This record gives sequence, structure tokens and C-alpha cells, in this order.
Amino acid sequence: MIEYVRKTMKEIVMFIDKVIEKLNEEQVSLMLDVLENAYRQGSKILVMGAGRSGLVGRAFAMRLMHLGFNVYVLGETITPSIGERDVVVAISGSGRTQLIVTAAEAAKKVKATIIAITSYPDSPLGRLADIVVEIPGRTKLAPDIDYFARQILGIHEPLAPLGTLFEDTALVFLDGVVVELMHRLGKSEVDLRARHANIEL
Amino acid sequence: MIEYVRKTMKEIVMFIDKVIEKLNEEQVSLMLDVLENAYRQGSKILVMGAGRSGLVGRAFAMRLMHLGFNVYVLGETITPSIGERDVVVAISGSGRTQLIVTAAEAAKKVKATIIAITSYPDSPLGRLADIVVEIPGRTKLAPDIDYFARQILGIHEPLAPLGTLFEDTALVFLDGVVVELMHRLGKSEVDLRARHANIEL
Amino acid sequence: MIEYVRKTMKEIVMFIDKVIEKLNEEQVSLMLDVLENAYRQGSKILVMGAGRSGLVGRAFAMRLMHLGFNVYVLGETITPSIGERDVVVAISGSGRTQLIVTAAEAAKKVKATIIAITSYPDSPLGRLADIVVEIPGRTKLAPDIDYFARQILGIHEPLAPLGTLFEDTALVFLDGVVVELMHRLGKSEVDLRARHANIEL
Amino acid sequence: MIEYVRKTMKEIVMFIDKVIEKLNEEQVSLMLDVLENAYRQGSKILVMGAGRSGLVGRAFAMRLMHLGFNVYVLGETITPSIGERDVVVAISGSGRTQLIVTAAEAAKKVKATIIAITSYPDSPLGRLADIVVEIPGRTKLAPDIDYFARQILGIHEPLAPLGTLFEDTALVFLDGVVVELMHRLGKSEVDLRARHANIEL
Repeated sequence: MIEYVRKTMKEIVMFIDKVIEKLNEEQVSLMLDVLENAYRQGSKILVMGAGRSGLVGRAFAMRLMHLGFNVYVLGETITPSIGERDVVVAISGSGRTQLIVTAAEAAKKVKATIIAITSYPDSPLGRLADIVVEIPGRTKLAPDIDYFARQILGIHEPLAPLGTLFEDTALVFLDGVVVELMHRLGKSEVDLRARHANIEL
Repeated sequence: MIEYVRKTMKEIVMFIDKVIEKLNEEQVSLMLDVLENAYRQGSKILVMGAGRSGLVGRAFAMRLMHLGFNVYVLGETITPSIGERDVVVAISGSGRTQLIVTAAEAAKKVKATIIAITSYPDSPLGRLADIVVEIPGRTKLAPDIDYFARQILGIHEPLAPLGTLFEDTALVFLDGVVVELMHRLGKSEVDLRARHANIEL
Repeated sequence: MIEYVRKTMKEIVMFIDKVIEKLNEEQVSLMLDVLENAYRQGSKILVMGAGRSGLVGRAFAMRLMHLGFNVYVLGETITPSIGERDVVVAISGSGRTQLIVTAAEAAKKVKATIIAITSYPDSPLGRLADIVVEIPGRTKLAPDIDYFARQILGIHEPLAPLGTLFEDTALVFLDGVVVELMHRLGKSEVDLRARHANIEL
Repeated sequence: MIEYVRKTMKEIVMFIDKVIEKLNEEQVSLMLDVLENAYRQGSKILVMGAGRSGLVGRAFAMRLMHLGFNVYVLGETITPSIGERDVVVAISGSGRTQLIVTAAEAAKKVKATIIAITSYPDSPLGRLADIVVEIPGRTKLAPDIDYFARQILGIHEPLAPLGTLFEDTALVFLDGVVVELMHRLGKSEVDLRARHANIEL
């Protein structure tokens, strides 16, 4: 019996599929412009997120490195100081994860440009960000799901627990951003492979 | 212009959608039985993967922790020794990532049960595993995509670079495994939330 | 020419040597009692620190795992929720590292017992901790060195930059704590080796 | 009673103190020349070590970043490919840690220059390295301690368990290397502080 494996995968796939149509083109364009600009100017990108959102952020950061960005991850060894020319990408479904909000406030103080990936533009993280990209989901902190997510799922309670829908959608969205950046920056898969770690764990 | 964001997301979603039908029920059932058994016996689960596959593994490990498993991640601080009662979940699209194969061989020597999540059952990792769960994808090491993936994508070259299709599909698949385990172990979302880190980064 | 290698090593060694005499026996005894008690009750220990202090914390956490503690590190994958029976070990030379103070405040809210390892008992971290263990050093945030450190070094500016003296002293101190715990808990090196990761990176 | 805390700290301090005299000047000079050269040519440095040796490596890598090196850590998110112009610093007391030997072999294949920090020049890691810096210690894999360490400790069994003496000595040694590099590269503490993460965990 692997019924729930298939049903859950189907739910996640249908959720992401509907999000594709509902993406806010202006928000995503702004994000892409800031990232493209950071690449061309050699600015630093600092990616941050807690828990599984942090892992999604790392998966994105790894691809930005493959693309040739000066990208770093909050909490890793070689992350340097950032300043006003630099960009923070902060990922939090609820927009309320305490340490991410605190870190984003610190980034705000040094005048970095903050891009928030969140389901809640009106959250603490959303309000302090320069650019918000709304990715619907269900927060893990509140029992309810946001309005947008409910529209997508209909009346049913989702099978996927906690922040799963947000996290998986954010990963697929950010993988879409990577391909858009490849085209904007004229990078091919061969370029990415050349920078991909040849000794890795 | 965010055309490639949408197109890539659509490609990933369609890919995962087709994988749902093609999942090998026997392989997945075996994996679930081993995991359920490990939970009931209090055995350790050691999750390993390199690069983005390692991040997918961590996202899965975090949910296993929420479910109450004794789960650890290769390379993190508090990972203990494992032995013959324990289970390794090794994730590698190509099944050839050097350090993962070496680590899986070491696990084999101490007689742990090895579950491989890979696109290539006939790879070094696939061959040494006790259970192989095939997740199609495109390897990052070879320019070609595997036969199964080609069937799914048709004749088109995928937009998503390197291991993206494998990694995103593996994440969604493992999130399906989590929901199946919730049902088998009688766990609700409330149980998961109770173990979810309340101080997190 | 490796003159500065030797001189710096000598400086660090002399610094730690003087700290041994100046350790506050009451503070250290309290810390040991709390840790011993946590072990016997099966409470969780959550270790946290930023930058190199965080690495010192991880080195300590790894030994606590070898000793059989339920120990976790802030920011790693499988770190669960903590509560009032649990213990936080927070390491910060200055006692002002923003994210560590924020995390310790969150731990305070859930009523965990907080042990601070810091040069500044009167810092934000020191003030909110239940137990403070003073380890002298030189903070990386202020150009001056604390009074205690100055007494040890005399009038000379230290060679070792930023938080080096604090971090190295904290590591050696915590390794002393490990041996004290081995004796209190009746653990031999053989016991530690049995839990030491057999597949590690 | 904190008797063992003090005794162990004293043992570690005396051990490191004797190592200072016994440092092999030629080995250390070679290491410094390779690192200085890598800095001036903008080559990459890849630091690797398992367990507590890996944490010592990270503490060193963080300082190299503060100094302006292109430095990376095996297993972290943004670690790129390396090639023949690049340098690997591999840390392993026993010189036999499986995954580190495998990773060093992979680095050898791409013709990177390999610096091994180990107690055993004649170990698998020592033999494949281009430069070996001997740091005495006691391995965690064998019950005995190496000849050099025994000379230092005399006939007594050390209090500090497993690899502690090697790891703590390696940290202090590498902090000495950092100060030597500061002088060679004309860097002041102000330069280091400027690159030190301003948002950190």
C-alpha cells in the first residue's frame, strides 16, 4: 500500500501547477532584475531561511554559485559581511520565523536590498522587505492555510503537513528563476557544470 | 519577462506528475516497510546525499525527526555510529557520486540496510543497496538523460539543468513517503508540530 | 620564517594557562551539575554559538553525543523543539551576538535553563542566562579587551586577532568539562569510541 | 569539584606548549608559501576534515575568508569545482579517515596541491599529500598514541579522550598560521574585521 505516497505527490503537483498561473509577474520581474543586476555588478547575495525553507534556500544558492554569482548562505563558514550594494534572499512561509526576521532586520540596517519569498506579504518579514514574492502555502505556525492556498486546494484539508506545500513550491519556483537567469545571463548547462563541485558531499 | 520561470515550473510539474504513475509499487512498499520497522524498533536512520540531493535528504530527515524517528544526517555534528540494525537512505541521481558510494560501502561493511534513491539501479550505489527506489531524472554527470526520463519528457531537451528534475522529484516523492508514514504510525500534524524546532535557523 | 606561528601559539598557550587558575569554581560546578542532571534525566541539550564560537560549540556537542547525551546544535537538520526540562549552552565572547541573544531569549520563553559561556557576565546574553561561566577573551566587536584578559596578557596587544583567544580557550575549557563529565558519569574512552561516528565527514 | 576540568586543561596546554618547540620548520614554511602564493594568484583553497577535525578546518577557513582568500569547505553549499591551480588543506589526525582520504584522492586526480595536517606522515593521507605538516596527537582509531605524542606526555595515559589533543593543537597551530599570513600579506585586524560577517549564526 503506497496510496498516500501517490495522493500526496499528486496534491503537491496540482498545488504547484495552480501557483504557476497565479504568480505575480511584477513581483517576479523585480526579483529577477535585482538578481541580474547583482550578478553584473558583482554584488553579494546572502540567502537565508530556517528549517526546510533554509534547505530550499541552499538548493537555490548552489545553483546561483553554478551561475557564477557571489552567493553565500547564512550560518555557513565562509559567509562574509554584507553592505548596501548587496542582496538578501529571505525565505519564510509564515514570514514570522524569529531568527530570520532578526537577521533580515540586521540586513536592513546595513541597507542591503531584501527580497522576501513568503506566503504573507503583510508579515514582519514581508513588511520589511524591498521586494516580496508571494508563494502561497500553508504555514506551519498556524493551523489555518492562507486564503490563496485555500482557493487552490478547494475545501479539502491538505495531506502534506506543516510547511510542505510552501517549501516544495518555493523550490520549484526558484528552479524556474535559475533557468530565467541562465537565459538572461547567456549561460548554458555546460557553464553550470564547469563550476559544479567535482569533490562533493 | 518571466516566461522561463513559468515554462520551467511547468516542465518540472509535468515530469513529477508522470513519475507518480511510474513509481514502482514494490520498491516503494519495501522502503516503507523498512522505515516503519526501524521506527518501531528504535533503529537509527542515517540519511546521506551530496549537493542538492543532500539537501533533499535533509528535508526528509527533518520530517522523520518530526515523526519521532532516530534520524541523523551524514556530516552533521551529532551523528553517531551505526550498526547492523540501522538503515541508510542514500540519495544520488547518478548513483555514482564518489563520497556517497564510499560512505554506502562503509555502511555495507557494518551491515546496515541500505536504501538507494537513484535514477540508475545498475549504478555502483544501486548495486550495493538492499533496496533501490528508482526516481527518474537526468544525471548531472552525463550529458544524456536516462531512458525513463526521456520517455516522460518526449524528445525535448529539458529546460531544468543538471540534476534538477531528479532532485525536485525526489523531494516530492519523499514528502509522499512522510504522509504514508504518518498514516502507518498513526501520527497527526499536531504530533509533528510538537517536535518541530521552536528555536530554529 | 615561521616566527609568528610560534609566537602566536605561545601567546594562546600562556593565555589559556592563566585562565586555568582564574576559573570561577562555583560557576563551573553549577554548569557541571546542570549537565550531569540533564544526562540523568534524559533532558535535551541545545548548543548554540555564531561563527567560530559556534564551531567550538559543535566540537563540545559532538563529545556530549559520544557521552550519550541527547544533544542538538542550533541550525542543524534534526534539532527538535525544547522545553522547560531542557538546557541551552550558548557561547558568545561578547555576549552580544544578535542572533544568539535572540535565540537565547526564545529559549528563555520556553523556560529552558540557559548556560552562557562568555567574557561578559553583564552582556545581554550574560544577563538572561541562569548560569554564566566567564571565559576571558577579547571580543571581536570592540577594539578593547576585557579587564580580565588585559590582566593576563599584561600591557601587550595580543597577536591573535578578533575572538581567537576566547574561542581557543573556550574549546580547551569545554574539553576539560568533557573529562569531568566522563568521571562523574563513569564513562571510559571505550564508551566514547563506541558512539563515535563510524561513517563520518 | 572541578578537578578534572583544570587537570585536563593543563594537560592540553602543556601538550601544545611542547609541540611549539617540535614544529617542523621546513614543513610549516612550505605550507605558508603555498598559501601565500594561492592568495596572490587568487587560487581556491578547499578545506576538509571529518568530525572535530572538520570543525577545526572550518575555524581556519573562516579566518582565511577574513584575510580575503577564496576559501571553501567540503560539504557546504557554495563549494565550487577545483583544479590544478588550487589547494586542498586536509586535516586528519590518523590520516586514515575514509571519506577524507577518498576526497583527497579526488583532489589529487584534478592535480590540486594537497596539504595534509596529520600525526602520521606515513598514513594514506600523508602519503598522497604534496606537503605534510606533522601535528602530534593521539588517534581516535587506534588505542595507542604515536611516538611523538608519547614523548611529550611521558608515560602517562592522557586524560583528554580520542582525538582531543590533536584537534586542539591543530586549532592553535592554524591560528598561528593565520597571524603569520597576516604579517606576510600586510593585513591588520581592522582588515579582518571588515570582512567578518555582520549577520552571523
